[in-house]
Amino acid sequence: MKKKILIANRGEIALRIIRAVQELGHIAVAIYETPDKDALHIRTADEAIWIGDGPRCDYLNIEKVIGVAKKSGADAIHPGYGFLAENPDFAKACEHNGIIFIGPPSDVIQALGDKVTARRIMLDAGIPMVPGTDNLSAGDAGLREAIDFADKYGYPVMLKATAGGGGRGIRRVENEKQLRAELPMARAEAKSAFNNDAVFLEKAVINPKHVEVQIIADKDGNTVHLGSRDCSIQRRNQKLVEIAPSLIQDKALVDKICETAVTAAKASHYVNAGTVEFLVDRDWKFYFMEINTRVQVEHTVTEMVTGIDIVRTQIKLALGKNLSFTQDDVHIRGFAVEMRINAEDPQNNFMPEGGKTVSVYRSPGGYGVRLDGFVYQGFTIPKVYDSLLVKMTVFGFSWSETVDRLLRCLNNFVITGPKTTIPYYVNLVQDPDFKKGDFDTSFIETHSHLINYEDQVSEGNKLAHLIAEIHYKGENPYAV
Amino acid sequence: MKKKILIANRGEIALRIIRAVQELGHIAVAIYETPDKDALHIRTADEAIWIGDGPRCDYLNIEKVIGVAKKSGADAIHPGYGFLAENPDFAKACEHNGIIFIGPPSDVIQALGDKVTARRIMLDAGIPMVPGTDNLSAGDAGLREAIDFADKYGYPVMLKATAGGGGRGIRRVENEKQLRAELPMARAEAKSAFNNDAVFLEKAVINPKHVEVQIIADKDGNTVHLGSRDCSIQRRNQKLVEIAPSLIQDKALVDKICETAVTAAKASHYVNAGTVEFLVDRDWKFYFMEINTRVQVEHTVTEMVTGIDIVRTQIKLALGKNLSFTQDDVHIRGFAVEMRINAEDPQNNFMPEGGKTVSVYRSPGGYGVRLDGFVYQGFTIPKVYDSLLVKMTVFGFSWSETVDRLLRCLNNFVITGPKTTIPYYVNLVQDPDFKKGDFDTSFIETHSHLINYEDQVSEGNKLAHLIAEIHYKGENPYAV
Repeated sequence: MKKKILIANRGEIALRIIRAVQELGHIAVAIYETPDKDALHIRTADEAIWIGDGPRCDYLNIEKVIGVAKKSGADAIHPGYGFLAENPDFAKACEHNGIIFIGPPSDVIQALGDKVTARRIMLDAGIPMVPGTDNLSAGDAGLREAIDFADKYGYPVMLKATAGGGGRGIRRVENEKQLRAELPMARAEAKSAFNNDAVFLEKAVINPKHVEVQIIADKDGNTVHLGSRDCSIQRRNQKLVEIAPSLIQDKALVDKICETAVTAAKASHYVNAGTVEFLVDRDWKFYFMEINTRVQVEHTVTEMVTGIDIVRTQIKLALGKNLSFTQDDVHIRGFAVEMRINAEDPQNNFMPEGGKTVSVYRSPGGYGVRLDGFVYQGFTIPKVYDSLLVKMTVFGFSWSETVDRLLRCLNNFVITGPKTTIPYYVNLVQDPDFKKGDFDTSFIETHSHLINYEDQVSEGNKLAHLIAEIHYKGENPYAV
Repeated sequence: MKKKILIANRGEIALRIIRAVQELGHIAVAIYETPDKDALHIRTADEAIWIGDGPRCDYLNIEKVIGVAKKSGADAIHPGYGFLAENPDFAKACEHNGIIFIGPPSDVIQALGDKVTARRIMLDAGIPMVPGTDNLSAGDAGLREAIDFADKYGYPVMLKATAGGGGRGIRRVENEKQLRAELPMARAEAKSAFNNDAVFLEKAVINPKHVEVQIIADKDGNTVHLGSRDCSIQRRNQKLVEIAPSLIQDKALVDKICETAVTAAKASHYVNAGTVEFLVDRDWKFYFMEINTRVQVEHTVTEMVTGIDIVRTQIKLALGKNLSFTQDDVHIRGFAVEMRINAEDPQNNFMPEGGKTVSVYRSPGGYGVRLDGFVYQGFTIPKVYDSLLVKMTVFGFSWSETVDRLLRCLNNFVITGPKTTIPYYVNLVQDPDFKKGDFDTSFIETHSHLINYEDQVSEGNKLAHLIAEIHYKGENPYAV
């Protein structure tokens, strides 16, 4: 039975979902704002509906998206990541309008999206948590609670927005003076960013590893994990490079983290795909951080090491199927690394390069290479969205083979027009600590020399120019 | 220690090997004839050496290739497939000149390349063989031997060139009259094609499945198999579509075939990567056909289901390493299908489309897609080589998922300029017998209706034209 599935997103994840929808024989409906009028997701979908001038406000407009879905006769909506993906009101609106939301039920999103409620669920389930407060009281009473907590557990502490997530709404506070100064600012920022001024404190875990676990659950509560990912390589709390599985040598520890993730998912009555995030400190203690109630950008690395198509599974579960595999069918093989090729200038504080046109686009191929992109030669990158152009995911049977392949693929990747993160990654994959798998969330900061590279014509660029030259002039200056 | 490795080949396999060489940190040396002067392998390699005007004769010229290898200081040569890959004289010339030949020793190539010697080795090792003769005697004595054999085992019989291989030098003979007529012709053809007029007879196996096994052995005789492949979908004895693993439901039979392949490899003192080919008849009996002493075109499907990089392994073994994994480390997961995207017109008897220029080239991406190609937008396909443009290899966790993904990828693949096998494959992957995995070597012949398709603008073409239109005119006719 063909279903009509609306994809309430843009960019690479819209294409990713359209592919899965079409592979399942369903009908993919794209939506777009004006700045995306030349985007590939519009033309790859079976139908495409313009929803407004944007930017961003229409992709975020629950009423508009639901209206368009109803008008198009959509049976289901896949929200992707970002935009409305973790908005419980959107999931609720789908439920109220008889549209299947491809994700967990709205009350699960609601509970897990509220960091303090999530903490309570996890504490009740015996999940290890970083010591922290409840939501701070308003005004001076809250400041007192904060100072008392910090005095008890010691500085630094993390001041967090209850409604934050994905690295947003977090401040590190080093002493009481700073705490007094930043608490009002954190409240104001939380109010403006998340329309919720609740904040709380946690003891800071210094330079942890960020380890997360992909979980999938069906409506009958069958819950499996698809192994771990290491996402420690971050800049400003935003992930740049993600690895599956975690390179932690103590396999029993990683197994324990994965099992804990399943416990956390069950405790929150989780359904569909989600990610349980943990911090691992230098004493190899691990702590629950949050559950992301959507498909992650970095789901590709898990797909490569398990062979399981996560988005396909999401759709099948949402349409009423149960899991077709058990934990015993899940085997982790080899290593996969995703590098986010962003239109940014690493040497200019990773400043976005939106507005520029991709003049040459030539991607690597062959064994172990997966590309999830949405740009093409001649495409002008909209200024108003995020800077992700293409996710390069590379597989290898061993870690060293994976690292070897990453370098080859980066050397073969040519994007001209905007500056990209590629030359930075070329340095990164040759770094001895990276090669050893020795990194935590401080990596980018402590390896600031990786930013040093010549803005040179890379081998790949040379190749692209040669081809252009041959194509237009009919001669090959490299011929013997 | 950096080694210099010369790649004595062209096209996609040259690029495939260059990637593996560079990933291992070695230096890749390409060679090329004049018709390949715009080929990607020249510019992707670290060095490229012109070897003559060709066509083909220079890639086949042992003296020239060895001379160039010595001059460039190459430590090793990878022959790829075709050209000199299975020529024992070439392997011998490498050995005599102190150059490592990345493949088995020349005497193994020699023994296995001679079909009659190979038969004897396999019979001695207890490998099941199709009943057959030794090399037929010259003249009328040989004709007598042939008639006696056919009378004993029944027609049809296969008349084969001893030095043939890869489907070449084989005739099916239906009766004595035809046998009398074809024997001299077969001898003459064998003499001209392989410089060896020896021929022999085998009982014909009617519409078998073609099942082959990838094997890898190190210099100490550690020999493992990487599972089975089904390559039954052939046209004129040339493979078009290859699948790993075999879809034969009787898993014990497939295991037995794989174990037999290891026995065959050990019996012939095999070293490096090779493929043991079998026929499986309608009574599920299997027979040894031949060992191909090189990397196969279709090695990619095995890489996708095992996670093991065969070309990387070939190079490491040839440079002196032993296998880093055992049979117990080899696990088959999911299914992979390779489709050879050829520049051919299926509706015109698969006539090659060489000489045409690729005007649009847009390839599919995302989960489970691997591309091994060597063409680019603006590339003119040389007329003088084979018609393979790109190998599309697609992975899925289940067979039905794999078939779903094949169709999506074919629909997303746009090549304009030459006609290609893509629209034929679009029909093929929707065929009920293909979907059931029910096919043997007669499939293309018995499914001749698959050739019926409109030479229509595919979805992918529509997409490509739209992008071109948007790019050049700045407008999108599909916008709402």
